Amino acid sequence: MQYIAPLAKLVEQFRRLPGVGPKSAARMAYHILKMDKEQAQALAQAVLEAKEKIHYCSVCFNLTDCDPCQTCSSEGRDHKLICVVEEPKDVVAMERTKEYHGLYHVLHGVLSPLDGIGPEELKLKELISRVKENVEEVIVATNPDVEGEATAMYIAKLLKPLGIKVTRIAHGLPMGGDLEYADEVTLSKALENRREI
Amino acid sequence: MQYIAPLAKLVEQFRRLPGVGPKSAARMAYHILKMDKEQAQALAQAVLEAKEKIHYCSVCFNLTDCDPCQTCSSEGRDHKLICVVEEPKDVVAMERTKEYHGLYHVLHGVLSPLDGIGPEELKLKELISRVKENVEEVIVATNPDVEGEATAMYIAKLLKPLGIKVTRIAHGLPMGGDLEYADEVTLSKALENRREI
Repeated sequence: MQYIAPLAKLVEQFRRLPGVGPKSAARMAYHILKMDKEQAQALAQAVLEAKEKIHYCSVCFNLTDCDPCQTCSSEGRDHKLICVVEEPKDVVAMERTKEYHGLYHVLHGVLSPLDGIGPEELKLKELISRVKENVEEVIVATNPDVEGEATAMYIAKLLKPLGIKVTRIAHGLPMGGDLEYADEVTLSKALENRREI
Repeated sequence: MQYIAPLAKLVEQFRRLPGVGPKSAARMAYHILKMDKEQAQALAQAVLEAKEKIHYCSVCFNLTDCDPCQTCSSEGRDHKLICVVEEPKDVVAMERTKEYHGLYHVLHGVLSPLDGIGPEELKLKELISRVKENVEEVIVATNPDVEGEATAMYIAKLLKPLGIKVTRIAHGLPMGGDLEYADEVTLSKALENRREI
């Protein structure tokens, strides 16, 4: 005997969540047992509801509970501007800046030949058909790593022949960062992209 | 907008779990959305089932899905020996040693006057009525901290007049530990409780 069956099952389920090891899973399970019944039901309900109600927007492929999503159907947003990101959570990060008022397009991944992810696996066809409809600029905001850069280059090559302006978010020193601790690639990017003040 | 409503609700629910901050909660919620529907249902089901099926054993107050619990009703166990622990998870720790074959008694807390936890809040009355029935030894395995020690002393005072042998688990250096890094209280306990070899 280690745990009784229903407890063992709960611990096992929690262990499947990212970043949760056996100790944390056990702690969570014991916490559930100490909760009010209503609170535990609320958690179970939230899991089921999220799974049921949330799907991808048919336009931008971000997570949404209505279709097209709030952003895509908003009149206050600039429909001539599309920001391309890798994952839905990147949209949340962009929105947090409160500086961007265009639309989004979620690729659901990046090009990564080693993992067998080619252009067909990403929402690229959908992006092309979107930009044909009166879009002026596409900002590529994939992550600044090897795959993200390669994907950005690929998208630029794909869209430029269509007469679309394709831009990439800037690379440089993060705000609040320290020259001394900056890696050399970031620093050379920061030098290369220097601006007159 | 930050998250869409069902996602925000799920993140909020995960944040209530111990050791889960806003970032981990978001990561877990996104993970749920990427899961198969069946897997998400299994998680929700495990939460509900654990809450429904698990209750306290009417004899030892450990968590159980039957009453009396497996340990209490086991004939292979020594019913003359009771190990007193603070919480159900301490039973799991004791069982992991595979060295203990008696019964348990879970106090559900320790004496802590500052937090308003007196003898009435613990399962002490129930312990007294249990030891009256043919019990020879009570091992007090509360944690080796101030509250745990005080509770152990209290239980000893309570049970000794009844003619019960009350013992306390040993304090000393943990196995695999290092003299150099042992704190002085542990080390003096280890000295005090030295044994001939």
